[in-house]
Amino acid sequence: MLISVVLSGGAGTRLWPVSREGYPKPFMKLADGESLLLKTYRRAAAVGAKDILTVTNRDYYFMSKDEMAQAQLDVSTQFLLEPAGRNTAPAVAMAAHLVAERYGPDALMLVLPADHLVQDQDSFADAVSRAQTLAEQGKLVTFGIIPTGPETGFGYIETGADVGDGKQVVRFVEKPSLDKAREYVDSGRFVWNSGMFCFKAGVILQELAAHASDVDAATRACWEATLASSGDNLAMAEIPAAAFAEVPDISIDYAVMERSSNVAVVPGDFGWSDIGSWVAVRDLTAADDVGNRATGNAVFVDSHNVYVQGDDRLVATVGVQDLLVIDTPDAVLVAHPDKVQEVKQVVKQLKTQGHEAYRLHRTVTRPWGTYTVLEEGPRFKIKRIEVKPGASLSLQMHHHRSEHWIVVCGMARVVNGDKELLVGANESTYIPAGHKHRLENPGVLDLVMIEVQSGEYLGEDDIVRFADIYGRT
Amino acid sequence: MLISVVLSGGAGTRLWPVSREGYPKPFMKLADGESLLLKTYRRAAAVGAKDILTVTNRDYYFMSKDEMAQAQLDVSTQFLLEPAGRNTAPAVAMAAHLVAERYGPDALMLVLPADHLVQDQDSFADAVSRAQTLAEQGKLVTFGIIPTGPETGFGYIETGADVGDGKQVVRFVEKPSLDKAREYVDSGRFVWNSGMFCFKAGVILQELAAHASDVDAATRACWEATLASSGDNLAMAEIPAAAFAEVPDISIDYAVMERSSNVAVVPGDFGWSDIGSWVAVRDLTAADDVGNRATGNAVFVDSHNVYVQGDDRLVATVGVQDLLVIDTPDAVLVAHPDKVQEVKQVVKQLKTQGHEAYRLHRTVTRPWGTYTVLEEGPRFKIKRIEVKPGASLSLQMHHHRSEHWIVVCGMARVVNGDKELLVGANESTYIPAGHKHRLENPGVLDLVMIEVQSGEYLGEDDIVRFADIYGRT
Repeated sequence: MLISVVLSGGAGTRLWPVSREGYPKPFMKLADGESLLLKTYRRAAAVGAKDILTVTNRDYYFMSKDEMAQAQLDVSTQFLLEPAGRNTAPAVAMAAHLVAERYGPDALMLVLPADHLVQDQDSFADAVSRAQTLAEQGKLVTFGIIPTGPETGFGYIETGADVGDGKQVVRFVEKPSLDKAREYVDSGRFVWNSGMFCFKAGVILQELAAHASDVDAATRACWEATLASSGDNLAMAEIPAAAFAEVPDISIDYAVMERSSNVAVVPGDFGWSDIGSWVAVRDLTAADDVGNRATGNAVFVDSHNVYVQGDDRLVATVGVQDLLVIDTPDAVLVAHPDKVQEVKQVVKQLKTQGHEAYRLHRTVTRPWGTYTVLEEGPRFKIKRIEVKPGASLSLQMHHHRSEHWIVVCGMARVVNGDKELLVGANESTYIPAGHKHRLENPGVLDLVMIEVQSGEYLGEDDIVRFADIYGRT
Repeated sequence: MLISVVLSGGAGTRLWPVSREGYPKPFMKLADGESLLLKTYRRAAAVGAKDILTVTNRDYYFMSKDEMAQAQLDVSTQFLLEPAGRNTAPAVAMAAHLVAERYGPDALMLVLPADHLVQDQDSFADAVSRAQTLAEQGKLVTFGIIPTGPETGFGYIETGADVGDGKQVVRFVEKPSLDKAREYVDSGRFVWNSGMFCFKAGVILQELAAHASDVDAATRACWEATLASSGDNLAMAEIPAAAFAEVPDISIDYAVMERSSNVAVVPGDFGWSDIGSWVAVRDLTAADDVGNRATGNAVFVDSHNVYVQGDDRLVATVGVQDLLVIDTPDAVLVAHPDKVQEVKQVVKQLKTQGHEAYRLHRTVTRPWGTYTVLEEGPRFKIKRIEVKPGASLSLQMHHHRSEHWIVVCGMARVVNGDKELLVGANESTYIPAGHKHRLENPGVLDLVMIEVQSGEYLGEDDIVRFADIYGRT
């Protein structure tokens, strides 16, 4: 019984402006239109996981569920929702409790970060199969990536004697200097620490108790609190905030892997990337004969080794080289490929300035769909609202704004004061301030609507919710 | 009697993406929100011009008139509209005919390109006054800029003996090599050729007849045709296309100045710039202590000597130096400061590709105001429409689209089929396909309206105009 535990946390600030707090790295779509999370779900199902358990922040629950739905997999799914980020040891411990509770302590966990990319699925499946054998024997198995060069951005694992289809772990090494990295790679004994694991739920819990008793105690208490509040609803278990606040913030590597003598490593070479920076994203696109690469709408003049990632907008470069240009509807990043680690400084500055662009995209995702602010001015705001088939906004009321709704595609069912009506494409309705209203998409196509708001105050907080199918009242 | 002739042509493709065919360089606004054209009008009025005659393409008539209105000058104004660009000799010749016709051959013309910047008005006024004296004596006077460095992008004028408050012209020199430019600057005898002139209308016509008889003959014929078609309406005289097509495409320098022995130069140092590239624009903004400059919303991380020009959108640079980033709603340019002359290659490529971004901005200017396409999708298009006080769109009809109009600011008078109604802020109306309609702003504030179009075909060419106050039926 293989259960995949997908760890989906972390803001991915080095991938700003695409990755933002409200839409972090796992949701980032690659050039093929698929997100890293969706690809991770596919990968987990492809190696035979019968259940995919996503551990993520509760803010990302609906978005994660959407990715899962889009992946169209024949697996059962569970979500374990964190009230805040607390690193990987608590996430793995909580997942282990859930897996042990549901499938018993001998169930195997395959732990996969949600924001990595694996390009060679067959080799990956082979590595997982080797790891499973070792994990069945009670080992903590980590996946090591055979280095393609002296990377200084990864931790390394020194491997020892063969253990079944894997190797013994001699030691874990933190991100090395370039000289050390060269030495490691040349030796042939070192692999990159990928952050992917395989072990029995019962074994990792024992090892946690042995090596990180504080984490063990706090997560046990937290699990009891989760069971008490979630009851039998393990398909969507929410970890109570008060209990989780007591859990130490520590990685599973540091808490267990580096301390246990029961660790084996399965080395592999399966086109792995942690997509840790814009250079890693750039490298997924083929270069032309002067080294330029583009996804989107680019014009290169006298430029080479330039990567442009855009959308509808046009990006032109003139007389430049060794550059990354990442364009989004409300922000553009221009960075040198050697300095991409510093992109997170931009996010830090924006946060300090109170600028929303570190947090939100122009298009904001909601449980029922998305909205995009097309324009804002004094006393008016124009939004494009997209509602998924069958979805429904809350029954709500605004004190200070009235709203004009014009349907451009699909069909809307609208509650407007005492009336309920269907509004089709090219029809409109008007919601005066103070009127209770609700918008639903009763159809099977996406509903696209333009909302023009008028009023003295147009803040998102002028909303009274009377009923909400997503529990937001 | 001093008449200022403002030559407002030329696309300014080196200043893409701000300067575009539909909104060229003279209309480009500097950081203070004023366009180069408006500043030129102010400059002309400040030196005592009683009349400002704009020679421009007929497509730019309404936009030019708007700039003139915004300048709020106490001068009379005239517009001489060209059906196509034909360089400066024909423009000056046609202006001279108009000035001679209206004010007599002794009236002085002060010829100013519409897309230059002068930062020291007092010194400029002084130079104009010296030039006027020489022009009164029958000289062709050109303004020479005392060089601030060995620029290779300008033509040079070698000066000789004093002539009144100016100098004799020894010779004109084309754009030199860097070595030659250094030699010129070191000699102290050379000035930059600014493209500004002062002469009597009658004198320049005589000189044209003497040195460029083909231009003279063709423009004389053209002037007769203009008079015949425009009648007495010299405030807005349109040059007939057929006649203008016969006029040679040649500069006034080449046709007359370089050939005549009657030319004097007034050297001056009045903070002149031809705003010939993004570097010239950059240099108008003060740099911080690492050489970064920004107008708009910029975040610099580990960057220096970077210029960011933007608007609402955020531009972040990381680990880069010596770079220009010019951001507009639909296009962004990233260029090296040493390669800004190549920006025109981008425009060329876009033209070849049939991409609209060489021609139009996201906001399109019309005689009655502007429209901005906020979003387009299958079967719908959303526009923000802004109508100036007192302005009126044509009485029109669309075969394939219906329109929802929602007023967000100001007041609209709407003809909708048989009805006429007033639509105020936060009110809406619906125009079905096939209905004759008209939109007017009867008020004194700008009217801002959101239009949501629906239909199978949403091209701008699905329009039947029944009546138009701007003569577009």
